[in-house]
Amino acid sequence: MSSASDATTQARQGRPTLAVVGATGAVGTVMLGILSQRQDVWGEIRLVASARSAGTRLRVRGEEVVVRELTAEVFDGVDVAMFDVPDEVSAQWAPVAAARGAVVVDNSGAFRMDADVPLVVPEVNPAQVRNRPRGIISNPNCTTLTMMDALGALHRGWGLTELVVASYQAASGAGQPGVDRLYDELAVVGGDRTLGQRSGDVRRAVEDKLGSASSPFPAPLALNVVPWAGSLRDGGWSSEELKVRDESRKILGIPDLKVSATCVRVPVVTTHSLAVHATFQRRITVDQARQALMDAPSVVLVDDPANGDFPTPADVVGADPTFVGRLRQALDFPNTVELFVCGDNLRKGAALNTAQIAELVAAELSGR
Amino acid sequence: MSSASDATTQARQGRPTLAVVGATGAVGTVMLGILSQRQDVWGEIRLVASARSAGTRLRVRGEEVVVRELTAEVFDGVDVAMFDVPDEVSAQWAPVAAARGAVVVDNSGAFRMDADVPLVVPEVNPAQVRNRPRGIISNPNCTTLTMMDALGALHRGWGLTELVVASYQAASGAGQPGVDRLYDELAVVGGDRTLGQRSGDVRRAVEDKLGSASSPFPAPLALNVVPWAGSLRDGGWSSEELKVRDESRKILGIPDLKVSATCVRVPVVTTHSLAVHATFQRRITVDQARQALMDAPSVVLVDDPANGDFPTPADVVGADPTFVGRLRQALDFPNTVELFVCGDNLRKGAALNTAQIAELVAAELSGR
Repeated sequence: MSSASDATTQARQGRPTLAVVGATGAVGTVMLGILSQRQDVWGEIRLVASARSAGTRLRVRGEEVVVRELTAEVFDGVDVAMFDVPDEVSAQWAPVAAARGAVVVDNSGAFRMDADVPLVVPEVNPAQVRNRPRGIISNPNCTTLTMMDALGALHRGWGLTELVVASYQAASGAGQPGVDRLYDELAVVGGDRTLGQRSGDVRRAVEDKLGSASSPFPAPLALNVVPWAGSLRDGGWSSEELKVRDESRKILGIPDLKVSATCVRVPVVTTHSLAVHATFQRRITVDQARQALMDAPSVVLVDDPANGDFPTPADVVGADPTFVGRLRQALDFPNTVELFVCGDNLRKGAALNTAQIAELVAAELSGR
Repeated sequence: MSSASDATTQARQGRPTLAVVGATGAVGTVMLGILSQRQDVWGEIRLVASARSAGTRLRVRGEEVVVRELTAEVFDGVDVAMFDVPDEVSAQWAPVAAARGAVVVDNSGAFRMDADVPLVVPEVNPAQVRNRPRGIISNPNCTTLTMMDALGALHRGWGLTELVVASYQAASGAGQPGVDRLYDELAVVGGDRTLGQRSGDVRRAVEDKLGSASSPFPAPLALNVVPWAGSLRDGGWSSEELKVRDESRKILGIPDLKVSATCVRVPVVTTHSLAVHATFQRRITVDQARQALMDAPSVVLVDDPANGDFPTPADVVGADPTFVGRLRQALDFPNTVELFVCGDNLRKGAALNTAQIAELVAAELSGR
């Protein structure tokens, strides 16, 4: 089952054991790539998925590993368990893994707002990983995560007070079914130069060929934008929009942060973008903000519109950092800057941040 | 040249003569459709374009009309001249048409902010059409226009003070070359289920097949969003973003309105969308806002997310009204509502509003 050499096997002894639950999903696939680039962190890596996917063979660290079924026993001997599964699966199984002694790093929404579960972005609030009485650490929602590195850097200097955010969210935020649906729709509309000019013709073309029942989106996404992500909450808000508010407050440690978000899906495969209007306690200039963002290790400033330089999702996808551009002083709001932020929602927005949290735990367990 | 019946010819006598300058462009094409639906307004309709397009035959009101070259003489006897041409062409020729006695309705940016040129949205400030000392009336920028009907209705009731706007702008905002480029790019990427997952692969695929020199956009638009529209202004702002600020102030008559806009192009053929965070002098509830928007004759409220009802550009394209949905009370901003607005940028955003202005002038000239 494993093709690791004797030297590799020896080197891995004494290192913590990792379980990856949800290894076959869109985030899981990216996670295996990220783990393969970090050879010196983990001992054994167990891949875990639903009964339907158990038995699948996946490659990680250059080795083929057979996916195991999600059971209580699969967590025996596991030090850290990453979960990327639906909320209800995490709600059921994360406590099981924790009871077996694993520290759980969970990327669902099941525990994020629980007072006794930390919500961690390693560049912003790394010390919170040790504050885990239930043995569970939550990874933030991908939309919130897209802007946390940049806003954390600015908050440290000037004290964030208000956020008005509009998102441009990629299909893969809805997982592999979202990616598949966007490609299916593009295959339908991509050759037809008449579509998108009369009401409903894109919808009819897509639904005639693909049906609508199977889409994870509530409207066609090709040749369209869809102002909805998540489920309906009080006052017409989407769950995604409230996550941006609640999680930003918790991660940044600003319980009274004023936040309004509008979340919109766009026909991009992977990488979320956000237009951010950020207001601070103290006067902030664009030069100061630029310097703070350049000093932030996980942020790349791409901001020279005279030469066509600004971040776009098609250029950012696959990269680890957060990319920031279009930095402007708001003309009528003295303590406000505007920025456009792009981040790979499967990497920093999900798998990478989860891996970073897990590595903080691994270092702690190893006494480093 | 004309196939109008004798009865039609007779009915048209005594009605004002219209010239359509820029008849062959993306907006011009929509304009001919709109004029064909309004048979009882105009007498003669002259179609005018650059020397390159002169001689083309186009259909309007069911009749074939030969396009005439843009010259001073073409305006002789013209009562109203609509211009949809680049800024520099309007700057040169609109005064010529006005000097020949035509009232010019101009859809370029050449005159919009001139103090002696009114900037008109008929549902918001119709009386301004008579305030035209130079014989020129400007039609607003399509992005600004998308939200003016809805915001005008709310401003009348509660007094608008602040706007934070993020746009989702369609390719046709860049004219027919924008539409052609988006279709060309979709034909390249539409069949490839690997693109959009690695940095720059969409850019390489598109540029390999199409080159980059010919695109009106500064980055690929298919499988992407591009945070840029217009030209660079001071402080990193785009001209489009400053138009939203300046033109909103002028149309609504609020010189100190606070505005911050981020303008982003999305892979949609036609219909601009805007996420709007609108703050008022007086406390406004969602119920009040909903009623005011339902009472506004040119606004359609589509706002039942429980049933998947919200406006999307693919559903709105080709329709005349402004569509508003996702109406929410901002949770942390007491006098603020959030809304998502969609409007066809070639119709209300350009041709339709121009036609409405021209009809106000026609009624005035006819003494109606």
